[in-house]
Amino acid sequence: MIYTLRIDCPDRKGLIYDITRVVFKHNLNIISNDEFVDNTLNHFYMRAEVEGEIQVEQVTAELYMVLPAGVIIQLLPQQKKNIVILVTKEHHCLGDLLLRYEFNDLQANILAVIGNYDVLEPLVTRFGIPFHYVTHEGKTREAHDAEMMQIVQSYQPDYIVLAKYMRVLNPAFVSRFPRQIINIHHSFLPAFIGANPYKQAYERGVKIIGATAHFVSNELDEGPIIAQNVIQVNHSHSARDMAQSGRDVEKIVLAQALKLVFADKVFVSGNKTIIF
Amino acid sequence: MIYTLRIDCPDRKGLIYDITRVVFKHNLNIISNDEFVDNTLNHFYMRAEVEGEIQVEQVTAELYMVLPAGVIIQLLPQQKKNIVILVTKEHHCLGDLLLRYEFNDLQANILAVIGNYDVLEPLVTRFGIPFHYVTHEGKTREAHDAEMMQIVQSYQPDYIVLAKYMRVLNPAFVSRFPRQIINIHHSFLPAFIGANPYKQAYERGVKIIGATAHFVSNELDEGPIIAQNVIQVNHSHSARDMAQSGRDVEKIVLAQALKLVFADKVFVSGNKTIIF
Amino acid sequence: MIYTLRIDCPDRKGLIYDITRVVFKHNLNIISNDEFVDNTLNHFYMRAEVEGEIQVEQVTAELYMVLPAGVIIQLLPQQKKNIVILVTKEHHCLGDLLLRYEFNDLQANILAVIGNYDVLEPLVTRFGIPFHYVTHEGKTREAHDAEMMQIVQSYQPDYIVLAKYMRVLNPAFVSRFPRQIINIHHSFLPAFIGANPYKQAYERGVKIIGATAHFVSNELDEGPIIAQNVIQVNHSHSARDMAQSGRDVEKIVLAQALKLVFADKVFVSGNKTIIF
Amino acid sequence: MIYTLRIDCPDRKGLIYDITRVVFKHNLNIISNDEFVDNTLNHFYMRAEVEGEIQVEQVTAELYMVLPAGVIIQLLPQQKKNIVILVTKEHHCLGDLLLRYEFNDLQANILAVIGNYDVLEPLVTRFGIPFHYVTHEGKTREAHDAEMMQIVQSYQPDYIVLAKYMRVLNPAFVSRFPRQIINIHHSFLPAFIGANPYKQAYERGVKIIGATAHFVSNELDEGPIIAQNVIQVNHSHSARDMAQSGRDVEKIVLAQALKLVFADKVFVSGNKTIIF
Repeated sequence: MIYTLRIDCPDRKGLIYDITRVVFKHNLNIISNDEFVDNTLNHFYMRAEVEGEIQVEQVTAELYMVLPAGVIIQLLPQQKKNIVILVTKEHHCLGDLLLRYEFNDLQANILAVIGNYDVLEPLVTRFGIPFHYVTHEGKTREAHDAEMMQIVQSYQPDYIVLAKYMRVLNPAFVSRFPRQIINIHHSFLPAFIGANPYKQAYERGVKIIGATAHFVSNELDEGPIIAQNVIQVNHSHSARDMAQSGRDVEKIVLAQALKLVFADKVFVSGNKTIIF
Repeated sequence: MIYTLRIDCPDRKGLIYDITRVVFKHNLNIISNDEFVDNTLNHFYMRAEVEGEIQVEQVTAELYMVLPAGVIIQLLPQQKKNIVILVTKEHHCLGDLLLRYEFNDLQANILAVIGNYDVLEPLVTRFGIPFHYVTHEGKTREAHDAEMMQIVQSYQPDYIVLAKYMRVLNPAFVSRFPRQIINIHHSFLPAFIGANPYKQAYERGVKIIGATAHFVSNELDEGPIIAQNVIQVNHSHSARDMAQSGRDVEKIVLAQALKLVFADKVFVSGNKTIIF
Repeated sequence: MIYTLRIDCPDRKGLIYDITRVVFKHNLNIISNDEFVDNTLNHFYMRAEVEGEIQVEQVTAELYMVLPAGVIIQLLPQQKKNIVILVTKEHHCLGDLLLRYEFNDLQANILAVIGNYDVLEPLVTRFGIPFHYVTHEGKTREAHDAEMMQIVQSYQPDYIVLAKYMRVLNPAFVSRFPRQIINIHHSFLPAFIGANPYKQAYERGVKIIGATAHFVSNELDEGPIIAQNVIQVNHSHSARDMAQSGRDVEKIVLAQALKLVFADKVFVSGNKTIIF
Repeated sequence: MIYTLRIDCPDRKGLIYDITRVVFKHNLNIISNDEFVDNTLNHFYMRAEVEGEIQVEQVTAELYMVLPAGVIIQLLPQQKKNIVILVTKEHHCLGDLLLRYEFNDLQANILAVIGNYDVLEPLVTRFGIPFHYVTHEGKTREAHDAEMMQIVQSYQPDYIVLAKYMRVLNPAFVSRFPRQIINIHHSFLPAFIGANPYKQAYERGVKIIGATAHFVSNELDEGPIIAQNVIQVNHSHSARDMAQSGRDVEKIVLAQALKLVFADKVFVSGNKTIIF
């Protein structure tokens, strides 16, 4: 059995020695290992894949004893994550995830899809996945988000994926799922932050458009970036053409980001990510 | 002899027919041809390469007679442009252009380099090109720009290239050389418009950095974009590493943009470029 | 109504004038126009979008009268193409095309999918599209291809898309559909031409993998290339990881190529394509 | 003082623990650390940056005692490498390296440039670097290589950079400098291995061209790849245009590869590289 060991703590001399001593004592084999020290925060991040007969609680307890106060230790079996997807009307990111899921190409189980419109319901049910239609009409944002949150919580997902969910989640919702909500933003952040970025891009006459996948947080503009990519455009592209090209970048960038997150390769450090 | 024919006018039916009739009458061969209509402005742009015994004034006069009021017609011999380069302290874009010039890989003659610091003088003179040191210290922006402008004008360049010239040119300077000033901006516009974009990019934790070459104009933010490109970065890059990677993108993007401009392939349409 | 006018003929002086004279006489407006002369073959290619009341047969006949012998003239309404897709077992390209079709993002109607295995039948029928299972087992290549061809012909498609159809079509099949068969090749041609390219790429230790969409022809290695793209990989990627990354490039490259072909933007010139 | 510790040995359980115990005992701080196990070869690679008062010989000796037979241990001060560059007639890679060297952007000292033609001598001497002209005319390959080798050896370089040196080095030369010779190949290996790759690429009608930097070895085709990159081209590019675009990719890819090699980040594992 292979486990992923993730450690996140203040830096000090001898950390790797202390960690590997515990690992060695338990007769585990380290088959891959990455470390990074963020010098601006004096913080240490480590991700290792370890193999052997693992007594998870015992190993974790011994690691806590030798590591600095404030350490976060995770010793996770390598298995699929459970996710819930939120959508509005656009199909491209959702469709891509459904196909990957169906053909075992997504390291996650899609437990449910929730939409504030019902246009994507036929697509979702065709894949045998529950679809919840929760209209926002006639509701305050708080009431709508609370309704969404109740459904989300009933599934106890590891992650919530906003696959072109075109509403801003209120702070209560976001706080409830720290570093668990992943969004795909239809621009190369921090350019074109506002609404209708492809129209903005067209009017500015850019030669490249992009997309950004990021964690959703309340504190900061748009949250820590996980993945970004771009595509070339030119003067013959209308705003509509740019949006169409943009959809291809969006679905690829979201899939890239999710692959990294579901493999437990992403750490959040302030407003940045560290990705091994 | 090959000439480039450029036409820029309000769109109407039969334009290409009217143009090619004149071209055919003069027994010229069209060896390449591109047209584009900007529907939002109802404007027509055409670039053709024509071959034969060309009576430039005669052909131009006949084209004016058949084309709509407001037309701009250019019938240009395919030859090197004359340019003056403005620099501050950074060497990478300048050095790249000097090497291309020396080895006949830049479709332009570098007439002179002007710097507001003298650190790049030894490099420039080594290539046998005049360097003018015009410090800005103790001068108003207007006085300094006027001094620069006088030197620039003495060379009568076709284009002025800002190869990391780190000062904003005043409106009088810019107005004097409409669509003749090309700048390389150290970010993927419109992201990170302000100072020190690599520090901004580092702090935002982006996964891609870019560069933008554009015409300088007074009216609009940063002017019409000619070329953009990007490079991947990650959490292990310091702001300094990002700047270093950025330098490689900057010099390539500037060279790409200049190649297009010097081949008379770029039209400006409002705040955008049309590139054939 | 907008039509696409495509002309492909030996080059000579005055071609564009002759063509636009006919277009102008019929009071049609040219809203975009591209021309290219392949100097090595002395051949002229033109694609224009024309608008107005078009008498297709009349205009075509008049164009034939003024153009050189051997000209190919197409005056096509801008409408969706009809396609048949051939598959084996891999889902990613097919799934991507089904989603685009379902959401009106593919300029084509998928008339049917034919597979030499039946594993993708459930996916296809879920989208309301006929699936034909034609096993190759116990049949000669000729017999199997003939069976496939009969089904394909019954649909009279404009194009046949090989969406990871992992068998070589025999010359009779290919000759029957000249420049109508588009394949996605799982490598950056001409590298790794043979079987199992991701294993080859892994063993060679490449840092980039790619995919190539091309027309299928009998005469030449793999046929004229329509689109290519690449993705970065590194030493930590197994051959399996490379294949997974490759699937994302493959589906994007195939979709890019089909978009160009279905918009009548692609000409074949010898073993190359000219794309406007 | 910061040192780079590189370890390359057969894999077994507890390696990192054994290594970090020695490091910790000597009171050194690990400020970055990467490990990788090549499962196909069952081989372990590690690169760490360590800080502190380092007794190089003592630490190395203790590491040898705890690590498996066949281990290679390097404990290298972070300082510039010494290099000799070999050229023929093309200037672009050489020029780029000279500029980086001049402005302290290359983590190496260029000790000398050797050419089998003298056309680049004026450029090199302008940067104050010795140029040796060693014509191959009238000499056997062995005699010419021997003459080159004698000059190279007199400088005792860490690395030899083939910056468009267009001759094949004989096995005696290559064997003399194992994993010390870096070449830039004007194609996206393994495509277009033979002569005149841009002509080949033009004739094949590719849509992307690339470049490859690699170690030179006798055993295998072209040697382990360090870096690759590509650029888009289209039907309007002549073979000459492709070569021009190719030059930009070549110089960037070579610079990327050298940056990695000079930072001691590249390991060779069979015919592949592992890059941290």
